[in-house]
Amino acid sequence: MKRLFDIIDDSKRVILEKIEEKYLTDTLGRITGTAQALVFPKSTEEVSRVMRFAYENDIPVTPRGAGTNLVGSTVPVQGGIVLDVSQMNRIMEIDKETLTAVVEPGVILSDFQEAVEQEGLFYPPDPGEKTATIGGNISTNAGGMRAVKYGVTRDYVRSLEVVLPDGQVMTVGTKTVKDSSGLALKHLLIGSEGTLGIITKAVVKLIAKPKISIGVLLPFADLKTGIHAVLHVIRGNADPTAIEFVEKKVVALGEEYTGLSFPYPDAGAYILLTLDGDDSKEIHRRIEKIKKIAKDNCALDTLVLEDPKTIETVWQIRGCLVKAVEAKSEQIPVDIVVPINKSAEFIEYVNQVEKETGISMVSFGHAGDGNVHLCVVRGNRSKEEWEKQSCEVMTKIYDKSHALGGLTSGEHGIGISKKPYFLKASEDINLKIMQQVKAAFDPKNLLNAKKVFQ
Amino acid sequence: MKRLFDIIDDSKRVILEKIEEKYLTDTLGRITGTAQALVFPKSTEEVSRVMRFAYENDIPVTPRGAGTNLVGSTVPVQGGIVLDVSQMNRIMEIDKETLTAVVEPGVILSDFQEAVEQEGLFYPPDPGEKTATIGGNISTNAGGMRAVKYGVTRDYVRSLEVVLPDGQVMTVGTKTVKDSSGLALKHLLIGSEGTLGIITKAVVKLIAKPKISIGVLLPFADLKTGIHAVLHVIRGNADPTAIEFVEKKVVALGEEYTGLSFPYPDAGAYILLTLDGDDSKEIHRRIEKIKKIAKDNCALDTLVLEDPKTIETVWQIRGCLVKAVEAKSEQIPVDIVVPINKSAEFIEYVNQVEKETGISMVSFGHAGDGNVHLCVVRGNRSKEEWEKQSCEVMTKIYDKSHALGGLTSGEHGIGISKKPYFLKASEDINLKIMQQVKAAFDPKNLLNAKKVFQ
Repeated sequence: MKRLFDIIDDSKRVILEKIEEKYLTDTLGRITGTAQALVFPKSTEEVSRVMRFAYENDIPVTPRGAGTNLVGSTVPVQGGIVLDVSQMNRIMEIDKETLTAVVEPGVILSDFQEAVEQEGLFYPPDPGEKTATIGGNISTNAGGMRAVKYGVTRDYVRSLEVVLPDGQVMTVGTKTVKDSSGLALKHLLIGSEGTLGIITKAVVKLIAKPKISIGVLLPFADLKTGIHAVLHVIRGNADPTAIEFVEKKVVALGEEYTGLSFPYPDAGAYILLTLDGDDSKEIHRRIEKIKKIAKDNCALDTLVLEDPKTIETVWQIRGCLVKAVEAKSEQIPVDIVVPINKSAEFIEYVNQVEKETGISMVSFGHAGDGNVHLCVVRGNRSKEEWEKQSCEVMTKIYDKSHALGGLTSGEHGIGISKKPYFLKASEDINLKIMQQVKAAFDPKNLLNAKKVFQ
Repeated sequence: MKRLFDIIDDSKRVILEKIEEKYLTDTLGRITGTAQALVFPKSTEEVSRVMRFAYENDIPVTPRGAGTNLVGSTVPVQGGIVLDVSQMNRIMEIDKETLTAVVEPGVILSDFQEAVEQEGLFYPPDPGEKTATIGGNISTNAGGMRAVKYGVTRDYVRSLEVVLPDGQVMTVGTKTVKDSSGLALKHLLIGSEGTLGIITKAVVKLIAKPKISIGVLLPFADLKTGIHAVLHVIRGNADPTAIEFVEKKVVALGEEYTGLSFPYPDAGAYILLTLDGDDSKEIHRRIEKIKKIAKDNCALDTLVLEDPKTIETVWQIRGCLVKAVEAKSEQIPVDIVVPINKSAEFIEYVNQVEKETGISMVSFGHAGDGNVHLCVVRGNRSKEEWEKQSCEVMTKIYDKSHALGGLTSGEHGIGISKKPYFLKASEDINLKIMQQVKAAFDPKNLLNAKKVFQ
């Protein structure tokens, strides 16, 4: 490993001893690996040379950025080298003519959003974790709230530069909008969780920044009625940016945590929408459509959130839910996705399992795209009890989601934590082809091995 | 090959003798292959059994649908079996709850668009060739005019069922909106031009149908000025559905062919936009934005096309351009894509090459996404002259497009006709990885071999 000092000519960026534990785990810190080296390359050339060294010496490599992932993707389960790209964090270009930006993988999402918005432009992908890196967002095809209108990270990647497991550098895609030229290697790399190559540069698409965003809160007697109304909203051409759902019992947790009060307390569940655009009148015209649809579909009211204080309250409560849960107990995050018309059935099942097993599950999430976030709450169970019971509960809910035509992950990725559920839900032929594709990129199986599909 | 009669129990759907030439070529009919069998399976099971038979006996297979492709993708260059899915043409479901449709690959695009619109829904991808199949559209990641607002075919594929070269059936994707679950095999299959598997079913995304569509014609002194204005329109949040360009000299061809007159004759080039939505007032508000941008960027006028006769005239002329060229001479279609700010420079170069070589090139296309269509016109050149000269000219323009950061194909695909240009423009490492990925799906290299990247 000492040869790494020759490759990276800055001894502060090569750590061979006393590697801090945070570099050996993910943001939850529950699974920890081991590593013989931690490197912080600052250029594609350095990444390439580290990878060539690792390849020639059969050393496993685990890539990472900010390490905000929730599924163990950044845990070095095979030992070897941890390659941290967080110092490759330059925004290299914001190109107003082609509406693209060129970024290094370690750029932090919130920094990037801010830089782009200062230029009057907009990068729509908006995953909850703003301190994640763009490279990490691309590696998991991160989603977020604005996906209903704008799509997910995949939809904003024009080109990637990647270093392959043997150190070769490959560029896929261009600044062009369309591409029907050969196999879509770019799309294969997006969402591959660092198993095929290390992203060292990305060209992403930007759009003109919408000037105004307005929130609408629809209270319902229960979640089922609310989710049903969402299907009508989606068909109603009202073009919402986000459609979130949250049950009253979950709002109560957020209220307790923040000390704030949610508007319209006498409801069983809420649908929270945002609409954006350039023209307040035009947005209000769309809100009128939603009002009508909401009324026809048993909403208890339609609250247009225009008072800054109310807006802040609503989003503070919505935004703190994971923290509100974690303030009380350890939790396992789940981001199952089901077809949009199955969300209510899925959440009803979750509530039923909660009753049967006594394991509390807090659900909220993206009603507009069937992406249900669950916090499976440990409470004061012992380690042994928790391992057994959480596994039983998780198996039940993953089985149910697959029975409903859903998927293991809508935005967090599979990593190692969800691998058992993903493997169980996948057909052998799909896994076999994934493994063969992996071998096409990484014949020695050194890069982020034993994860996702293997 | 006689064993195919056991696999497909309907002798009309297995042809071993006198195979019509149209099944051995593409829509241009300039390259013709040979085949020992032509089969018309009607089910996934039949496709699977044909493929297993071919695999076990090392027989090459060339898949096809309506055969409308322009690049030789459907030419059986290796002999063997031509597998035509055009009889698998059922629309199996239009699901209003999840806004998806389930189709077989042989469904004709125009039939599908009509069926969906009758349900008040909308399938936005709109390639020029309406008699193509959905399977073919997916195989080339077809684009079309509405791509500026709605994206391309890739953006509307939720799930695919494919038969792999060895006959195994694999389903990738689901009806869900989001997917961060394993390698994106679905995206790899989209645009793979039948080299990895045969699509036997697709789940595609639909949206609510916009009620109104209005056209706007912007005349400019020259194309460069027009393309420059387009960049401002795109940044102006006016949300156009389509942004097309056409030069006056090209319009003149269409006028001659149709006997119609284009509005505003005293211009060097035109930008033609459409805007859609539900509310005429709101669309007109966006048109006002465009008017202002157009005026600030040297448009000679802004013509809002509301008179049905003018609208018909404009679209008839725009729509007939390839036919207008072909009425006079053989032509080679090109669909180069460049970054949107490079379209004008690229077309200027094309005009310059036209002057230098005397080979006429008619250009028009999608200004909103840098996708330039060229008809390279043979005129009355002899076969030998034409082969030599067209190759020289094409090499020049493909080289230029790549120098500008462009790609060989924006929507037609590579097939065999564009393979030399694609291979020249591609780095060895990209081609190597594509070949290795191909081998992961097709270790015997039997399915549509010798095409695209190989």
